[in-house]
Amino acid sequence: MTRSKRVPEDCAIRFEPDGITMKVAPGTTVLDAALDGGVMIDSVCGGAGRCGRCKVMVRGAAGIAHGARKSMISAEAPKTVLACLTTVEGDLKVSVPEYSRVGVHQILETSENVPLKELSPLARKVHLKLPLPSLKDNLGDAERLRRALKKEEDKGARIPLSVLRTFPAAMRKGNWEITVTIAECQNGNEIVAIEPGDTSKHLCGLAIDIGTTTVVVSLIDMISGSTLATESTYNQQIVHGEDVLTRITYAEEHGAQKLNRQILETIRTLIPKACEKASRKAGRKISPICIMSASVSGNPTMMHFLLGLDTRNIRYEPYIPVVNTPQYFRAEELGLGIDPHALVYICPGRSSYVGGDVLADVVASGMHLKSDITLLIDVGTNGEAVLGCKDWMVACSCSAGPAFEGGEVSSGMRAMQGAIDRIQIDPAGEVKFHTIGDRGPLGICGSGLIDLVAGLFINGFIDRHGNLAKGKTKRIREGDDGDIEFFIAKRGKGGNVKGLTDVAPGDIAVKESDIQNILRTKAAIYSGCSVLLKTMGYDFKDLSQIAIAGGFGHYLDVRKAMIIGLLPDVEMKRYRFIGNGALEGARLALLSKQKRKELQKIYENMTYLELSVNNTFFEEFTSSLFIPHTDLDRFPSVKELMELERNARK
Amino acid sequence: MTRSKRVPEDCAIRFEPDGITMKVAPGTTVLDAALDGGVMIDSVCGGAGRCGRCKVMVRGAAGIAHGARKSMISAEAPKTVLACLTTVEGDLKVSVPEYSRVGVHQILETSENVPLKELSPLARKVHLKLPLPSLKDNLGDAERLRRALKKEEDKGARIPLSVLRTFPAAMRKGNWEITVTIAECQNGNEIVAIEPGDTSKHLCGLAIDIGTTTVVVSLIDMISGSTLATESTYNQQIVHGEDVLTRITYAEEHGAQKLNRQILETIRTLIPKACEKASRKAGRKISPICIMSASVSGNPTMMHFLLGLDTRNIRYEPYIPVVNTPQYFRAEELGLGIDPHALVYICPGRSSYVGGDVLADVVASGMHLKSDITLLIDVGTNGEAVLGCKDWMVACSCSAGPAFEGGEVSSGMRAMQGAIDRIQIDPAGEVKFHTIGDRGPLGICGSGLIDLVAGLFINGFIDRHGNLAKGKTKRIREGDDGDIEFFIAKRGKGGNVKGLTDVAPGDIAVKESDIQNILRTKAAIYSGCSVLLKTMGYDFKDLSQIAIAGGFGHYLDVRKAMIIGLLPDVEMKRYRFIGNGALEGARLALLSKQKRKELQKIYENMTYLELSVNNTFFEEFTSSLFIPHTDLDRFPSVKELMELERNARK
Repeated sequence: MTRSKRVPEDCAIRFEPDGITMKVAPGTTVLDAALDGGVMIDSVCGGAGRCGRCKVMVRGAAGIAHGARKSMISAEAPKTVLACLTTVEGDLKVSVPEYSRVGVHQILETSENVPLKELSPLARKVHLKLPLPSLKDNLGDAERLRRALKKEEDKGARIPLSVLRTFPAAMRKGNWEITVTIAECQNGNEIVAIEPGDTSKHLCGLAIDIGTTTVVVSLIDMISGSTLATESTYNQQIVHGEDVLTRITYAEEHGAQKLNRQILETIRTLIPKACEKASRKAGRKISPICIMSASVSGNPTMMHFLLGLDTRNIRYEPYIPVVNTPQYFRAEELGLGIDPHALVYICPGRSSYVGGDVLADVVASGMHLKSDITLLIDVGTNGEAVLGCKDWMVACSCSAGPAFEGGEVSSGMRAMQGAIDRIQIDPAGEVKFHTIGDRGPLGICGSGLIDLVAGLFINGFIDRHGNLAKGKTKRIREGDDGDIEFFIAKRGKGGNVKGLTDVAPGDIAVKESDIQNILRTKAAIYSGCSVLLKTMGYDFKDLSQIAIAGGFGHYLDVRKAMIIGLLPDVEMKRYRFIGNGALEGARLALLSKQKRKELQKIYENMTYLELSVNNTFFEEFTSSLFIPHTDLDRFPSVKELMELERNARK
Repeated sequence: MTRSKRVPEDCAIRFEPDGITMKVAPGTTVLDAALDGGVMIDSVCGGAGRCGRCKVMVRGAAGIAHGARKSMISAEAPKTVLACLTTVEGDLKVSVPEYSRVGVHQILETSENVPLKELSPLARKVHLKLPLPSLKDNLGDAERLRRALKKEEDKGARIPLSVLRTFPAAMRKGNWEITVTIAECQNGNEIVAIEPGDTSKHLCGLAIDIGTTTVVVSLIDMISGSTLATESTYNQQIVHGEDVLTRITYAEEHGAQKLNRQILETIRTLIPKACEKASRKAGRKISPICIMSASVSGNPTMMHFLLGLDTRNIRYEPYIPVVNTPQYFRAEELGLGIDPHALVYICPGRSSYVGGDVLADVVASGMHLKSDITLLIDVGTNGEAVLGCKDWMVACSCSAGPAFEGGEVSSGMRAMQGAIDRIQIDPAGEVKFHTIGDRGPLGICGSGLIDLVAGLFINGFIDRHGNLAKGKTKRIREGDDGDIEFFIAKRGKGGNVKGLTDVAPGDIAVKESDIQNILRTKAAIYSGCSVLLKTMGYDFKDLSQIAIAGGFGHYLDVRKAMIIGLLPDVEMKRYRFIGNGALEGARLALLSKQKRKELQKIYENMTYLELSVNNTFFEEFTSSLFIPHTDLDRFPSVKELMELERNARK
């Protein structure tokens, strides 16, 4: 892939229907130009020419890469190409169809709300009326403030130079009545703001959940503890690949600055939106600069990108992050776009693959406070599992792969507008489905894939290995590439169709190779959980609770997930859905010192189990590649269902 | 005064012999242009057209201000003008004579060295060999370091983000052998650097003394405690006026940015020089970036300018600084030009006019550790006095005026090349003198002025009011302006002449009005000390020691200072000269935690006495305007001398 060179910038590229025109150097890829211009073209493989997501129509002078070679074209009529393999070689018009864009996503913003007995937020306000200075009482402004503060940790608070510079004006403007904002930091407090008069009624904070795929922010009133607004969007990094490893590779090859900037831009896009929503709700102007505190949860790779840290060593054995417990940074160090002096708390992570998002899940689940044992599963772009109770905790990361986010599945897609999220197959092979946004179907998202595989299995269209039963229904057929597939629908046709727009022609089908990818993903998660239990000498039946965290979990049909052997076969009542635990954990950290202490305690109590070198894991994984599992006795209710269905079909 | 406007820049101004040519907007004063171009033209009044120091010769198109009016000239032949009152109105050549320059100064760099039992510098290095990470031992880089550190306060040290970013490369480059630099900060330590390998043998720090007139830096080896190099120069701010009040006024009128920049530039000029000198001495390259720590002493106004704080309230009653105890700042916050993460310790000050320089004097004098009572006097551009012992301390600032720095005295000048620093007058009125640098005389500096007044008094050429005895010698004459004066020498002639260069023609003489200024200055200092003692119920004879700090004190003839009534008339053996105590105090703070604690203790123990509203002070001051004092019994040895001389003259 040719990288953008800025000199000479002599090709004009125009994106439609965006209407964005820009100058780029010859040899720049259309994908790179789109990213630079803010045109969000989808790319799962990170520009490697593999995923085929970045299809665009070009007119003008372009180069098409074929491996190391490049052929030059001069298209009069629109030509469909992959944006990542096409370079700008002269003036070029690019039409970006909707299906190649990173679209409107169904992002889980909600979560179980953990009630807090009392608030002890990361920052708080203190309103003071200072005695007027005189010749007899001639302390400096800073010392006058310190003397008036009551708590010892406030008296000794650090005052950053840039805040100190605002002291004289604020004190005199307010005629010595002031409000100071004091934030918690490592080893003591810090005065992050001084305002004239009494502003102690208003103080905003931000809880941020940075996912590999999506980013969610909640604007929170730190006086009442209530959430004023929540906003979410894609992580702009997504154009450099779906999973953390692709991103790390991108950073190694191209530097991490772009990825750092994209995370920041993603967050900075959400903040003003949240502020606007909150302003309407609160009936007063809340601007980003009013935000005096923030807490962030995210996986270690995302945290590294946010902090501008080298991600290289996360990728290679023994998988070492730069830091597990980054603690506090100043917003201006990060470039968050809130009050520059605000301190930003980062939830601690346990290892390179069990990060602050998982510890936030734990604190949101409350499992760390219970005597009996909980298994927590977070299936996002990656899968993580934590087993434990108040006395101990063991965690692992399951390299689940992006199948449930729509990656590595030919008709897979993210849970966004037009994705099939529910699907039913009847014994005759007839298919009913529902799409997100009630749109013509464009592909299948994670929950749809699980429904699909479960439906295929229960109705005997696939066997326990995931092989399609040829001839059993006309929907099972040979695809264009010679692979056997199960046909679901034509793109844009059927289902609960509404507002169909430009849709690339084609069929939505699931291939045998897709099913294998789905089975590998489910096997990774199930066997990870299984190994955690075995390691600690427990069985699934010993669990008092299975907590499912994350967006994917939220939309999941647990019964179907049990059928394919993704989730353990236990009574439904033991399942609990905590929703976006990463966001809830960040919210708790923002509002409660107790919860921040608990996060630190969880960090200290948690043992990380590395599955990649665990022999038991490989045995378990192999057994779990079956539907639901080699050992059917582990899935008694599925076994029973299989027998019922078999009898019904007889 | 017209300020420099940058657009349109259409006049070319050339400074000779500097050879500097620059473009400036029409209307820019020659003084401003010179400052912008780095040509250091002297100015005592800060550009108000009063002091007459900034004489230059111009050729070309210029405007001359006469109050609100301006006359335009087009000089073919060189015309002597004041740079501050002359504007550039077309192309202009400016010749700057040596006597109008801020020249080579005699700056006191030396001080009594207080021995330290053990070093506990602001920063120290810890050399570590970390265990290699593995799948079993997969802590993050930061946590691996924390675990290896032995002291609790080091384990919990903050790690700034920009330092954290350097962790992975440093650890791997050194194959897990590293050296970390840990600095003391408020509320705990901070890791300010990490280097691969063992670099623990080398660690440099900087002690900085920022005076109103001069700046001195010492580069210090923080491992051995030895001083590697000391460099000094003028405070570049001097062009905006001689004393702190003129500078504050300038900041109010023009903003403080320029003054902040000038202090920084002054320091940044000295640092590489000190590094070069130290490199030669140490036989290895020491560059500014190697400096990992700094401590600063200075008066509150200078500290405010250094920190970019508003100085306005220092000037007006009740004279409130922004901060007395600024503590620690990061070098990059200040822009010091050393390692950006280095922490800079600022010596605490007691009030707006008794600052960190005085507290540094105290810690250098050791008076705060003694049971018996010391009086410390620092005569610099301002005068300060501290009275006390280990249990209590009281301090005052004497608005001495700049007479001893050469200000407000017609033939006065700073202690630089060509200044008369020693002068003897015999009963016949004959004069012998010595100049700094053995140059032709250009004026008289502080120590010379004291010699002069003492000589005039002892020989009966002035009475106790400072009035010249007309007719007593032909040297006493009517000056050009009708004022009575005592003629000393022609500029550039006589004394220990060597290497005479371009000297403006004229006479060096002391006028009656000059003598009054000198007497006011000496009275301010003496009466300040006197009031301190009275307030605490002591008398000069109760003092075990009088410690004289500062450059002026160093070159002072104490006997002559007693004669004019500047210093109390006590046995000579009770006088002690501590030299540049401000620099020594900064050095002690850099190297010793104990001394930093002592500084804090001094701050807490010290009471500030505001003389400007003290009635006793005004009585004392009035009595002290006499030579040596209204009450001759206070100066028994001077009284005796006066009687001897009177008898001798009979």
